Amino acid sequence: VIPKTILVLGAGRSATSLIAYLLDEAPRQDWQVCIADLDAKAAEAKTGGSPYGKSMAINSGHEAEVASAVRQADLVISLMPPPLHPRVARICVNEGRHLITASYVSKEMQAFDEEARQKGLLLLNECGLDPGIDHMSAMEVIHRIRSRGGALTSFESFTGGLIAPETDPGNPWRYKFTWNPRNVVMAGQGTARYMDEGELKFIPYQQLFRRITRVEVPGFGSFEGYANRDSLQYRDAYDLAHIPTLLRGTLRNEGFCRAWDIFVQLGCTDDSYEIEASHLTHREFINLFVGGKDASAVRAKVAAQLQLDPGGEELKRLDWSGLFSDELVGLASGSPARILEHILNKKWKLVPGDKDMIVMWHRFRYTEAGTQMEIQSSLTEVGIDQEHTAMARMVGLPLGIAAKLILQGKISQRGVALPVTREFYEPILKELLGLGIRFQEWERAFS
Amino acid sequence: VIPKTILVLGAGRSATSLIAYLLDEAPRQDWQVCIADLDAKAAEAKTGGSPYGKSMAINSGHEAEVASAVRQADLVISLMPPPLHPRVARICVNEGRHLITASYVSKEMQAFDEEARQKGLLLLNECGLDPGIDHMSAMEVIHRIRSRGGALTSFESFTGGLIAPETDPGNPWRYKFTWNPRNVVMAGQGTARYMDEGELKFIPYQQLFRRITRVEVPGFGSFEGYANRDSLQYRDAYDLAHIPTLLRGTLRNEGFCRAWDIFVQLGCTDDSYEIEASHLTHREFINLFVGGKDASAVRAKVAAQLQLDPGGEELKRLDWSGLFSDELVGLASGSPARILEHILNKKWKLVPGDKDMIVMWHRFRYTEAGTQMEIQSSLTEVGIDQEHTAMARMVGLPLGIAAKLILQGKISQRGVALPVTREFYEPILKELLGLGIRFQEWERAFS
Repeated sequence: VIPKTILVLGAGRSATSLIAYLLDEAPRQDWQVCIADLDAKAAEAKTGGSPYGKSMAINSGHEAEVASAVRQADLVISLMPPPLHPRVARICVNEGRHLITASYVSKEMQAFDEEARQKGLLLLNECGLDPGIDHMSAMEVIHRIRSRGGALTSFESFTGGLIAPETDPGNPWRYKFTWNPRNVVMAGQGTARYMDEGELKFIPYQQLFRRITRVEVPGFGSFEGYANRDSLQYRDAYDLAHIPTLLRGTLRNEGFCRAWDIFVQLGCTDDSYEIEASHLTHREFINLFVGGKDASAVRAKVAAQLQLDPGGEELKRLDWSGLFSDELVGLASGSPARILEHILNKKWKLVPGDKDMIVMWHRFRYTEAGTQMEIQSSLTEVGIDQEHTAMARMVGLPLGIAAKLILQGKISQRGVALPVTREFYEPILKELLGLGIRFQEWERAFS
Repeated sequence: VIPKTILVLGAGRSATSLIAYLLDEAPRQDWQVCIADLDAKAAEAKTGGSPYGKSMAINSGHEAEVASAVRQADLVISLMPPPLHPRVARICVNEGRHLITASYVSKEMQAFDEEARQKGLLLLNECGLDPGIDHMSAMEVIHRIRSRGGALTSFESFTGGLIAPETDPGNPWRYKFTWNPRNVVMAGQGTARYMDEGELKFIPYQQLFRRITRVEVPGFGSFEGYANRDSLQYRDAYDLAHIPTLLRGTLRNEGFCRAWDIFVQLGCTDDSYEIEASHLTHREFINLFVGGKDASAVRAKVAAQLQLDPGGEELKRLDWSGLFSDELVGLASGSPARILEHILNKKWKLVPGDKDMIVMWHRFRYTEAGTQMEIQSSLTEVGIDQEHTAMARMVGLPLGIAAKLILQGKISQRGVALPVTREFYEPILKELLGLGIRFQEWERAFS
């Protein structure tokens, strides 16, 4: 038997758990795992000296280089930045290789659907955590409710990448950057839309962190969530075209959203223009967004401008993050969003000993035999350390398991796809359960 | 002497006063005035049967058609939509003709500067009211202060197109659409920047109608202003590179901004997506932007969501505009901004008997011989009726006077220009004064 080769594009921190899984499975599955990254050393380090792993330097801008690596593989998993995925997909379709990503399906990606089907190729996307495990765990419950004759009336789903209770106990945000910091700072720009009791609803950015949903995870704690950009795009994928209430969002600890809203209201998350920042202090940065010369009064000015209690929890979070300090920002220039990210990262960067925590929560409401029923389902997972995060594990494992299923010939789906059908979610959730990743579920009648 | 021909592109309502001025001057100046519009009848009507006027149908999309008309003229005045001006400028430069507009200089327009200079052509922009008369009246005062040794420390300038005190006395907004309604609905999107006592300041859209400036026009009344997009871009044109305070804005009657802010906060001015609207009532439109199914409670929900007093002046303005009524919107579909414009236009459209009113106000602060001085300068002008608006008059007259000066050979400036130098503002302001358009001025020492 000729061993099969899996090409992993991207060897950043987010690839740790995926690569560990693939190298662990390699002897049993007869795989070679090729790890490619612009940074050859990072790629080599990720092989951990395994005889089943090899590494290579790759420049994603050099199409011929990527094509050559793809040609030598049986399947490609891309952890590259999402905007590069259409280019990777183009090469995979040309070379006749399956592709798996953890990223949202863009219009450019969707455009390959027909051609991929014709060539018998699968371009599987949204197969990480969120999107990924959220789709799979939701579809498992939705199909179960349907199979016993229930009619869904509401589906709400929130996921958050937070920090473990024992990490950074003095941090009032209960948050650090556990994934791409830029995405966190830019989150929610644009308009969110969702369905609420049969009515279409819109939330503009300036209301997003104010129109929040309280989420009580049974037996675990209280959280709050803000709406994701477009909950409605899953109506078709989930076969929920006529469900009256449909809301997907991002989970944060209580109080996060009202404090973050200060940045939104002031304009600190704007990425559309550049500011000269070489001599700027944190306090002076904030003072750009309130009237008046006096930077020493900036905290009071923010409170007055946004009608906040100067002694309240929102401003205490900004105090903790050093936003009113005389420390230099430490960037030559940048957009407000970039500068804010840089300031926040000083205290929100994971340090040795830090553990992240994933919380996922679904609530399904449905009518069965005339009774209104509710299922809540939740998953909580704490990371091992600041390298082996719960986030990396829960993004990487579904990707790895999906690769195994495809190479074993167990997946019939072709074209551009999400893991929302039984052939995906059943074996993937089952293997995740074996790896200790389990959902807890509560069911009750309600009126 | 061969008569000179002025080509006026655009015969909409805004062209009324300009064309009347040109036809009135035509016999004395030996002019022919050619009025071109997509709507041949509108163009013909504007000639009023004058022997000095002729009209033609023109399709701005047909470059050869526009070029042919430009070639037959000695000077072109464009009242076409601003995005078309670079195309018109391209043709004028090719054909060797001067161009005058009342629009802001875009980057595309600025790009013609070098070529226009080389060909000895003037592309004069921002020669209407705002921008236009504001530039001229400000530069006149700035040069006067400088000529007597004063050092400017602050320049603030606000202009508003409002309604006359006797018009629509029950209208709590004290506002109607007297110019392009779409621009009013979209006003302020993006980030405003200005200088405040030596400090650069930014105002994002979500704060724009909250961070307002109180404006007291001496002897006339109290107003409020919100900042225009970029006050700083005039630092060079006005030769105010190092002035500590520089703010340009838009004037409204008291209470307007807080009420308008409801639309901003809810997201009703968003133009980035389309809504199906054929069965939508006003009330249901607003209900898209607050949570919950119950449209009958929408007013209370808005008050709760935005923490407004249900009996307060802000919501009373929305009541007056019918935003909570069960009337159908009357559009098949549209962006929120387009739908809002359509609803507001039901009561904000000028009707026979309505008169508009322009208010312009400048405040200059400067130091002279160790004393802090202040000059306030204001202009108020009421329209004749809903056709012959103050807005059309004050946009059109400076354009017409500038055309006369250019054709008389009295302007030396070439390239892309604003009317900020003495050769423009002195004769134009003088002729405006003769036409009854006069600034009032107050000067005082202050500490």
